[in-house]
Amino acid sequence: MLKTRLDAARIRAARRMIDPVFLDSPLYRCEALEPGLGCTVSIKLETANPVRSFKARGTEVVTSLLAEKGSRDVVCASAGNLGLALAWSGRRRGLAVTVVASRFATAVKLDRIRALGARLELVDGDHEMARERAAAIARYDGIRLLEDSLDIETCEGAATIGLELVDGAPSFDTVLIALGGGALATGVGHVLKALAPEVEVICVQPLGAPAMTRSWHQRRVVTTDSTDTIADGVAGRRPVPAVLDDLLLVADDAVLVQEASITAGMRILLEHAGLVVEPSAALGIAAILEDRARFAGRHLVTIVCGSNVDVGAYRHWVGMTPVHRP
Amino acid sequence: MLKTRLDAARIRAARRMIDPVFLDSPLYRCEALEPGLGCTVSIKLETANPVRSFKARGTEVVTSLLAEKGSRDVVCASAGNLGLALAWSGRRRGLAVTVVASRFATAVKLDRIRALGARLELVDGDHEMARERAAAIARYDGIRLLEDSLDIETCEGAATIGLELVDGAPSFDTVLIALGGGALATGVGHVLKALAPEVEVICVQPLGAPAMTRSWHQRRVVTTDSTDTIADGVAGRRPVPAVLDDLLLVADDAVLVQEASITAGMRILLEHAGLVVEPSAALGIAAILEDRARFAGRHLVTIVCGSNVDVGAYRHWVGMTPVHRP
Repeated sequence: MLKTRLDAARIRAARRMIDPVFLDSPLYRCEALEPGLGCTVSIKLETANPVRSFKARGTEVVTSLLAEKGSRDVVCASAGNLGLALAWSGRRRGLAVTVVASRFATAVKLDRIRALGARLELVDGDHEMARERAAAIARYDGIRLLEDSLDIETCEGAATIGLELVDGAPSFDTVLIALGGGALATGVGHVLKALAPEVEVICVQPLGAPAMTRSWHQRRVVTTDSTDTIADGVAGRRPVPAVLDDLLLVADDAVLVQEASITAGMRILLEHAGLVVEPSAALGIAAILEDRARFAGRHLVTIVCGSNVDVGAYRHWVGMTPVHRP
Repeated sequence: MLKTRLDAARIRAARRMIDPVFLDSPLYRCEALEPGLGCTVSIKLETANPVRSFKARGTEVVTSLLAEKGSRDVVCASAGNLGLALAWSGRRRGLAVTVVASRFATAVKLDRIRALGARLELVDGDHEMARERAAAIARYDGIRLLEDSLDIETCEGAATIGLELVDGAPSFDTVLIALGGGALATGVGHVLKALAPEVEVICVQPLGAPAMTRSWHQRRVVTTDSTDTIADGVAGRRPVPAVLDDLLLVADDAVLVQEASITAGMRILLEHAGLVVEPSAALGIAAILEDRARFAGRHLVTIVCGSNVDVGAYRHWVGMTPVHRP
């Protein structure tokens, strides 16, 4: 019996709370990727939905429960995708959503949060400062603070991806999961370890934002003073102890990858899979690129977890510059 | 009672023959597109599957029926996507697949056809010449010739997209469908007219390959001597009479769009929806761009029917050039 904070019955209930537009996302083998990577690769695509990331699986659960209780307000800190998803889910249920983000966050994510009618507050610092500010707002206004990865709804919402992966007999050996706060990794990892324990769960984080991976290896919370990565979605510095405890139970490994591998992964996904992805969503491919021998001949699933990119930055990362148009 | 060649029971049966990896593709509203287009836009995404186009819905039906009968061989002419889909479906069922294509066809489509183990024969001419050669092979070898749009399986396979569109109460006013040979348009159009007749069915074809659209307007087959469009997937010159008859029953309109609108559509889908699409898949957005007044305030669904592009050409179309990497 797996002793994480997650619960099988609540994960099944989560599926019923989530708008079907976010469920049963494409899962398909992408053979065009394989000659270059030396292994069998399947994509679980979490970007073909109204918020272009997996995060709405969690915010749908949170806002459903809030609406049930008659709550009106919710605030979260976000690097962008959580806030965007919360704005979408909250609008649908008539909730007032406040998102606190770093003013250095990806512009298109902030634009979409505003466009969805949420109140956006920017802090002049990184994501950890946004977390502090969101907590202060929640205390001051007496409203619900949604904390990514700590709040079990975010993990159990993400865990519904795991249910979809194990539906039918899984033919894959390993799942590669982007690791940031840990909601995706503990959610999907929990379901895999409970229902398909033979499948290896490997978390991937940028070398420039290694706090959770270092914590996992040292089996205690390790924080860092700063982050330095283009993978904005996973750039935390202060792992949550309860999430680390769960991750220790469900992850088989956690690896760090270089920035050059992340951009190479983005290019490969564009050129061979026709997929635009944000840096966090290329972490799985980056991990394969950095250790081909380890994965040779195996069947890997990589969860493509988001595609919200600023077009200019994206063009730069994938090695394109705009043509001058007079 | 709708008197096309398509049959409701066979379309439902088709759903059971198609590998689920191709079914229930994402259908979602894409609000980021809307300010620029002046209408509500939903995407039906037919590219997140192993062949990156909708064509496998048809080839799954064809090859299922062939395998049932114990047939071993099948040949088709293809601009690329049909051949790629037939190669995928045929491999899965142990069939020997021959694809005839123009040597000017999109290189990545031809590469994928070869990679899937099909026999590829190139002709030194356009798609109509490939059709003639495929027919000759079928006659000479006594094997099944799969003819796109003429063979009812290709239409009824595509029609399963229509079933997914009308599942639940459709909230949209209009569906924009790329028009080439007509399988997609008559398939989806048939289901819409049968089950949601209030939904407007608009076919979109490039001005540089207008044969079927002109035929629809003149209510008789009109051929052209040549085609001139980047939308390789819809560049036919000789409409099939039986397909035109069906199209006359299910389409509310057929419009032609300029090449510049197609590339603008591709850019918009990349920059605001994060989607890589091939030119044929941008025809719906192109149609909106060319007649904003007509569509203002309406809710449109556009079927993003394929994403197989040569990377170099794609970069050129969407206004990017590769960065020089020393």
